Parts: sequence; structure tokens; C-alpha cells
Amino acid sequence: MLNNYKSGYSLSQCFYKDESIYDLEVKSIFHKHWLFAGHTSQIPNIGDYFLFEISEESIIIVRNKKNKIKAHVNVCRHRGSNICSEKYGNKKLLNCPYHAWSYDLDGLLITARDMPSDFKYKNNNLHSVNVELIGGFIFINLAKKPLSLYNFKRDLNKTLDLFGLDDLKLVMHKSYPIPANWKLAVENYNECYHCNPSHKEFSQIHMMGTDNKVFKKRKNDFHEQNKGKLKFAQFNCYYDYAQTGQEGYQYDRNPLKPGILSGTVKGSPAAPLLGNLTEYDNGASELMLGPLMFFLLYDDYIVGYRFTPLSLNNCVCDIFWFVRDDAVENIDYEINNLIWLWDTTTLADKEIISNNQKGVNSSFYSPGRLSLMEDFQKSFLDWYINTLSSYTGD
Amino acid sequence: MLNNYKSGYSLSQCFYKDESIYDLEVKSIFHKHWLFAGHTSQIPNIGDYFLFEISEESIIIVRNKKNKIKAHVNVCRHRGSNICSEKYGNKKLLNCPYHAWSYDLDGLLITARDMPSDFKYKNNNLHSVNVELIGGFIFINLAKKPLSLYNFKRDLNKTLDLFGLDDLKLVMHKSYPIPANWKLAVENYNECYHCNPSHKEFSQIHMMGTDNKVFKKRKNDFHEQNKGKLKFAQFNCYYDYAQTGQEGYQYDRNPLKPGILSGTVKGSPAAPLLGNLTEYDNGASELMLGPLMFFLLYDDYIVGYRFTPLSLNNCVCDIFWFVRDDAVENIDYEINNLIWLWDTTTLADKEIISNNQKGVNSSFYSPGRLSLMEDFQKSFLDWYINTLSSYTGD
Amino acid sequence: MLNNYKSGYSLSQCFYKDESIYDLEVKSIFHKHWLFAGHTSQIPNIGDYFLFEISEESIIIVRNKKNKIKAHVNVCRHRGSNICSEKYGNKKLLNCPYHAWSYDLDGLLITARDMPSDFKYKNNNLHSVNVELIGGFIFINLAKKPLSLYNFKRDLNKTLDLFGLDDLKLVMHKSYPIPANWKLAVENYNECYHCNPSHKEFSQIHMMGTDNKVFKKRKNDFHEQNKGKLKFAQFNCYYDYAQTGQEGYQYDRNPLKPGILSGTVKGSPAAPLLGNLTEYDNGASELMLGPLMFFLLYDDYIVGYRFTPLSLNNCVCDIFWFVRDDAVENIDYEINNLIWLWDTTTLADKEIISNNQKGVNSSFYSPGRLSLMEDFQKSFLDWYINTLSSYTGD
Repeated sequence: MLNNYKSGYSLSQCFYKDESIYDLEVKSIFHKHWLFAGHTSQIPNIGDYFLFEISEESIIIVRNKKNKIKAHVNVCRHRGSNICSEKYGNKKLLNCPYHAWSYDLDGLLITARDMPSDFKYKNNNLHSVNVELIGGFIFINLAKKPLSLYNFKRDLNKTLDLFGLDDLKLVMHKSYPIPANWKLAVENYNECYHCNPSHKEFSQIHMMGTDNKVFKKRKNDFHEQNKGKLKFAQFNCYYDYAQTGQEGYQYDRNPLKPGILSGTVKGSPAAPLLGNLTEYDNGASELMLGPLMFFLLYDDYIVGYRFTPLSLNNCVCDIFWFVRDDAVENIDYEINNLIWLWDTTTLADKEIISNNQKGVNSSFYSPGRLSLMEDFQKSFLDWYINTLSSYTGD
Repeated sequence: MLNNYKSGYSLSQCFYKDESIYDLEVKSIFHKHWLFAGHTSQIPNIGDYFLFEISEESIIIVRNKKNKIKAHVNVCRHRGSNICSEKYGNKKLLNCPYHAWSYDLDGLLITARDMPSDFKYKNNNLHSVNVELIGGFIFINLAKKPLSLYNFKRDLNKTLDLFGLDDLKLVMHKSYPIPANWKLAVENYNECYHCNPSHKEFSQIHMMGTDNKVFKKRKNDFHEQNKGKLKFAQFNCYYDYAQTGQEGYQYDRNPLKPGILSGTVKGSPAAPLLGNLTEYDNGASELMLGPLMFFLLYDDYIVGYRFTPLSLNNCVCDIFWFVRDDAVENIDYEINNLIWLWDTTTLADKEIISNNQKGVNSSFYSPGRLSLMEDFQKSFLDWYINTLSSYTGD
Repeated sequence: MLNNYKSGYSLSQCFYKDESIYDLEVKSIFHKHWLFAGHTSQIPNIGDYFLFEISEESIIIVRNKKNKIKAHVNVCRHRGSNICSEKYGNKKLLNCPYHAWSYDLDGLLITARDMPSDFKYKNNNLHSVNVELIGGFIFINLAKKPLSLYNFKRDLNKTLDLFGLDDLKLVMHKSYPIPANWKLAVENYNECYHCNPSHKEFSQIHMMGTDNKVFKKRKNDFHEQNKGKLKFAQFNCYYDYAQTGQEGYQYDRNPLKPGILSGTVKGSPAAPLLGNLTEYDNGASELMLGPLMFFLLYDDYIVGYRFTPLSLNNCVCDIFWFVRDDAVENIDYEINNLIWLWDTTTLADKEIISNNQKGVNSSFYSPGRLSLMEDFQKSFLDWYINTLSSYTGD
């Protein structure tokens, strides 16, 4: 199946319908790459936790007694019960509700009654997974030896500092379940060929969906005008362009439609300028880290776009909206103004992606030619096939 | 599994539970035989369309600019999105809502923005499938080289003309989803051994469910009395009796209960006489074309009975009621009087068929002996096994 | 998979997720062992029946004309329809609703219209399955040659007589569907390591969940005080301790908390003393017969606890409450007082077991060490693995 892939075309049907493909994706992608779990502002106090769930995994993201963010597999080492069944809360100890084994916030087993004398506590701590903070963004990785974030940080720390990533707060989180394979959702995000026909709200704010030549010309001018500025850095280290052993990432800044300052109904500001920014520049930055997480950085707010596979035929798109942490609701920002663009766009995409799955299920479906505006999607597909092909186990 | 079939017995459990059997059925039956899609009166104007869906396939049935009925696979050649998501409507062009590729009503690709220079429009038209009209009945076939309808037309055109097939209108369409394998539904339709115990409404109108000898005697007399009349033609070219390369069909006329003129509560007329008919003759004709479509032709209305597989364990029975196209509702016919018999009967059959599936799932189930009144079903099963056994690919 | 089992640890994930394991369980366990179907008081009159359903099987439990309890597979020998679709009722004959084949209450085929001349009635009786009564408890067995109940009866008839098993009535039956593999439910029942953390109601009545040493001391004393009494018999012939060819069983009596007479809110009596009992003795008996049926015998009422697999991922726990048959509701017993303990406990267990399934689905789950309080569960798991390993077909 993998050998029949033709770069520049969409995938064969089997990649959207075959359980064995999905199993391979779990191992070679979901358990290998960095995943966005959420934001530190969701768990401000010691003992605060939330669950991040992907496919069959449930991960407890918790703030420990030393104020560090930890991530533990939500599976008791005794007989496998979920330890936390509520999506978020506060815990002094991670007590398993089944047999009352208890773990501390670092996942160390503290109590297990009536065990045989040769039972070793130290071998029965919760499985913990790697955590990295990018500002307050919490990324986790289910692999024992995760891909490095060194290059990402080296290239982007200073640029991201401009947007005050350490001083954000999450002001809205919405989940959009999609009855389709996760790749159809990621592919949808990865190209703007569909933006003009499908998203009139997006198209009144962003230039990307309009005529490709017009957009490229404007983008060149925009970067020319802002040459040398940190905010206008460009790093295309995504997918197959990532260095071996490094997680893939991208940062780029794109022009908005003339006169547009931010992603709001009228293009007017949504919230106070982020970080150290002192002016609107009619642009927005794209940031990608790992294959399933995308951010859009306006000058005054940030949208996080997460795709999470649930099963072969179901995924969920989660959107996170961030403003600077000292902004006050209804004074500094209006929540409906803030979420309008991407809520509207995602509801439309949910329909589009569901329709795509239905068509892909047809025996008449065959891989179709990609347009010139689907280059980023092409990179995703090339990388996807490479990733599956080169997977050799743990 | 196929070798264990014993003619005269019901099928083994595997034929109702095995996904690989279903996959073989898709290829060897659903994609080979003629399927009833609907009626021309459903799409009277240029650009009118409706969708016909079977298993994983969605087909657009549309009236083109030359007033011809066309059938196109509802899958965009770009990335496979469904083009029409509404069940019916009117379109000037078949625009894909995803990336705005557009096709004309004949399925020719008209616009595809920003494609690579070597992209060939002519290789990217919609997949179209064969269409044949029998009067206003629209039949389609998903195969590249479909079975011929030559014999059917040769044998039956004149007889069907009597019923004015060109001048009908669809006045009601109801769908009855059934949580059972499609064959259990077709088998149910194919025998009247169950009619007497299960369908008292049917049995007060039709003779077929009553004592087999009484019925056969009355049928012989009926045909004797009407010898030589076109309406009393008999063609048993169904299932394995079809000539090689020809689609199977059957036409036969059966007596109704004494004094019954049509399939209504009191046996009185339902609507104006069809076509050129000048009198009621106390009979009704059975018409079958392909393995999944059956018609019942009363003198004043026609019922179409369609079985459509959705998946291994689910199918849908659709019933279509037709009267002559100049009949006026509430003056010439009463819709409740018209649909009473077959709506009632089908609701009962839905229960019966669901119960049959439950029992067939038991490990204690084994093929049972068919009665003398299940000869037609025996033919269906013999043909079914032959069809699967002899399938050699495209 | 079977070879990797380590006694004293929980099972590997595959045993909870693999369809082929489930298929093997159907054959080697559900179709081999004695299953509790219900109670004679549910079908007091000739022709009364109820359905017992397990996995894909539906069994008609019916009282025949000679006042004997019979069990027939609910599958017509003609084309496999379920014969009874209502869960309970009264029938003079077992008429198949499809084609009206009819069977008498002993399952003998009585009428089948229009069959070929060589059709043999005697080969087309309903499949019947073995039935044994333990008092009024109806046990059935789907195997042709079932395991013997000889030892069970030899060892326990006299003891069970004390509780008047012949003179009970069922006063409540509740079903608790659980979205989990059946083994997680049985494992939950098989250990009281979880009782203290999870079941405060249980723990105020029963001693078993409290500190293991305290419980064992009290139990020894209890048996010492009652040495030689029939009620204090002990038979540990369960799981691998069953003699070859004999069904497994257990009988044991355990002390309740000090001052507790029965399983009610205040520990006060629930109903008149059972059978020939003349006093409350502050204890309750455990009775197990076959791998899926457990009883708890208080001095004044009996609770039956049945686990029934429905599919790989779903099972149902049914609870049956019995009092002596001459007890009068609202005078001799209050139904809410009677069901309080085990209804509350089972609703909690339903949550616990569902959470356990979620955790077991994680790729991070691995078999965990059992505690000293999970010995009975260890026996269950040892037996389970042995049973699957040694299965050689019919």
C-alpha cells in the first residue's frame, strides 16, 4: 500500500479505512511526536490537573508540589483502572478509586495495602511521560526517547518571546468532534485551496485563500518591508524538512487583508497587544510544532488548533484561544468577537471533512492530483508515507 | 463455505455474518447488476437531481441540459469529497463545495483552479455510470460493461406499455431501515409462505399466501380465461434462468381474492386505471428486474419495492407508489388508501426480518429445509451461491 | 498469549480486547459451564416462559404440560427466526411468528405446512439444552455432555435445605449493563480488596472488606463457635479445585459486622427467616455454582449475582432478590430495604468496572501484581487461562 503512493496526489482509500494502518499510525506518529496537551493557566494551583486523551490513552497533566508540570499515564499499576475519571480537578494524591493505591503528584507509589512481601513499590510508580513547556504551552511526548526540541527552541525562542508566551491565559477552549479519519482533518488545515470557496469569514481577514500569485506578491512585499525583524523570521523545518532526531516545526508570517489588524469581525483589535509588541503590523504568524498542533499568532491573541485521533474514523479538533494574562474580559476583550472567526471556520470545516470521508469511502475514489496551492499538504503526505514506511518498532 | 451450500435449504450463518462475504457481494452483485435509482418524475426540470446511495456508494441522478437522465458518482476527482450533500436539489453546475472544482451536468470537469501545467481536465471528469429508463423508472448499473437489458425489453416492452409506464408519477416514497443482512429482506420478499401467518391485510387482497393448491388452481383458471392477452404474458428469466450476459427478470400475473379490484382496504379501486387499461380484471402483475428490485402492478397503481444493502448488518427497504401522472390527489386517489397495504405489510416484515437475523446469529442455527412454497427463494439462493462462486474479479 | 500469563498478576490487555479470545471463551466457557437462567417462581403456570440471553444465544425457559422446566434454543429449525420475541409470556405452543411452524412446550415440531414429502419432523425439533433445578433456581447448560452437578448436590443439598431453597420467591430482578469485558466484572466480584475504599454501605454490614487479619481472626472464631453445624460447612471446589468432569462450586459462611443480622440499612432483619432457620447468627453464606453465578445467603433473604457476557466489550450484571415464598410485601418485607445494599454496591461497581476497562485499553497497561486479598481472583485467572489453554474443541 505504501509503495503505491504517488507524491502530488491524495492518499489511497486504505489509509482512511484500514485498522492496521491506524495501528501503525498510533505507534509511529501518536506515540513518537510531541503533542499539545494544554496550557499552564488551566492548572494554576498545586494539585490541579486535567486529562489529555488521545486514541486509547489518557494522560494526567498535573502541577506538582514544586510547581512543575508533570504528565502521568492515567492507569493504575495494580489492575489498570483509570485513576482520574473527571476531566479536571484538584488532587493532593493520585488515589486510584478502585483499590486505593495512591501515588504522589510525581507519580510515585505511596500506598498499596496487603501486598506480597516481595512487592517492590519502586517498580510500580505511574508511567510518566515527557513534558516540555513552550512558554505556558504544555507539550507531552509518549515515547521513551522523544524527538528533540533543541532546534525549535534555538530558532524560535526569541521570536516567540515577542508574543509574551509566558504571560498568556486560556480564555476559551472548544472541542469539535469530527466523524472522519484524523488525516482528512489535518489535510484540511494544511491547505488554503479551499479557503476561498468555503470560508468567506476567513477570506475577509486573511489573504492566503485568495489568488495564489496576488498572495505571494503581497507576502514578498510584506517581508521586504519588515526585513530583519525577529517577528518576520521564517523556519520551514516541518515534516520531512525536520533534521533527523528533531521535532518538526514551522514559523512564518503572512500578511492580512489590507487594513485588517486582527482576526475579528471588523478586523479591528480583539485584545491588548501581546508581550512586548507595540503596534499592529497587518500580519499574523503561523506556528507549527509536531504534526498535530498549529498556532496562529495575531498581534493581540493566539489561536491553538489541535487535531486528536480518537479511532480510525473519528477525531476531534480542539481550539484554544489565548490573550495576555492581564487582559480583563468585557473591558479588554469580548469573547464572542475573539472566537468568531475560528469557531465559524471550524464548524464549516467539520462539515467539509465529514463529506470528504464519505466520498473517500466510495470504491470509485482514487487519489486525485493536488493543486499548486496544496504544497504544504503534499509535504504532510510525503512525510506521512515516509514515517509509516520507515517505522521499525520502538 | 460456498461448497457447503445445499440447494433447498437456507444459507449457513457465515453468509449473514462474515465481512469478507459482504465484500464479495459488493463486487459480484451490487456492482454488477441493474439497480433501481428512482423515477423521472422526481427530477422534472433541467438540473434537478437526487442521490441514490447503496453500501459505500453515493450516485447523483441528474437531468442534464438535453433533458436526459445521467448518473454520476458523487465523488470529486480532486480529493474525493462528496459533491452533493443534500439528498435532492437543483444545480446549474455540480460544484464541489470543498475546493470549488466544478463539473457540468454531464460530469465534465469545467473548472479546477491553480492546477499543475500538465494536469489534464479530460482525465478528471466525474465517473459516470450507466443509466437505462424503463418508462420513467431509472435503472443504473455500476459496472463498466453492464449486463444487457435487451431481452427484458424485447419480451416486456409491449406488456409494460399497457400500464402506461411512460406516464406515471411518484406520489409517495417511504424508507424502512432494517437491522438485518439484506439477503434476509430479499428472502422475505421472495416467498409467500409467511404471508398467511404474518400478513392478514395482504391475505385479504392477494391469493398467493393461501393454500398452495387452491392458489395454483385459481391461477391456472385465471390464465386460461385470459389466454393470449399481453397482460398475461409470463417470463421467468430470473436468477439462474437469465440468459448469459442478460439481466434477470420476471413478469407474471396473479389472481387477487374474489371481488378484489386493487390493493386497498376494501379492494375497491385506488386510482384511475393505468395507461390504456379499460377494466379491472381481478389480478395484479409481478415484475422483477435485477436481483434487488420488484414491482407490483395493480390495474390502477404500481408499487416499487427496492432492497438496498447498507452494510453487512443493515439494509433499507424503500417503497415507491406510482399512479398515472394526470391523477389528482384527493379527487382521483387518496394517499392513505393507496399506501395502506404495503406500508402495513412492510412494517410487519421489518419486525420479522429483524427477528430472523437474531436467530441466525445463534451458534445453534443451521440451514433449514425450505417448504414447497419457497421455490422462488430457492432460486434466489441457488443463484446467489453460483454468483459468488463464479466471481472472478472485474 | 496464553503462555505469557503469570499467576498472581492481572491478565494481559489482549484478553480484554481480542475478538478471537472472546470466540474461544464462548466455546470453552459459556457453552460448557452451568448458567443461572432464573427462578421457577418466574414461570408458575404451564406455558409460562421467559428468555435467557447470553452472547448471541437466546434460550426459552418454559414450564411444560407436566409442570417440568424445559429450556429450548429460541431459533426456529426452518429458517432460524427467533420464536419468542417478548422477554416473557405464556404460550400454549411455541409458534414461530414467521412461517407458523409450531412446536409443543417440549420443543417437538408439531406443524410445518407444505414441506417436501421426505421432510422428517423428528429431525426438526427445537434444540433443547440441559436444565437442572437447585431448589427453585434454574440452571442450564448449552453443552451436549454437561459437567456433572453430582458433587455439588452431594456436598450441599442438606446445607442448602436449611435455607428452604424450594420455598423461595423472586421479589426483584434488576439488570445493570456494564460497558466492559465480562471478566473485569467477575474479577471485581471475586475480590474484596476494593470493598473498603469503594463500598461504605457494604463495609458497614460485611467484615470481608476490612483488614485482612482482623477478618480472618473473626472468621476463625465464628467457625469455632459454630463447629459441626451444617450451615457452617465449607466446600472450596471452585475453579481449578473442581474435580475433573464436575462443575465448580463453593460454599462458605462469613461473619457480618458485630450486631448485624442481615444486609439492610441498619443491619436489622429484612424478612422472615428462611427455610427452617430459627435464629439470626450474625453471618451470611457465599454460594457459587459455575464461573458466572454467585449467591449470598443471609438468614432472611438471598441475593443472586449473575454475570452475562454480551459481546467482547459489553456484559450485564443481573441481581435477583429472593425471600421465602409466604412472605408478604410491606408486611413481612420492604422491597427498598431489601435491595438497598446490593443495588447501591452494584451501581458503584458498574462505574469502577467501566473505569477499569478504559485503563486496560491503554498501551501502557501491563499486568499488575495482585494483593494478598485477591486470592480468589487469582484462582479465577489461573482457571481461566487453564480453561482456554486446554480447550480442544467440542
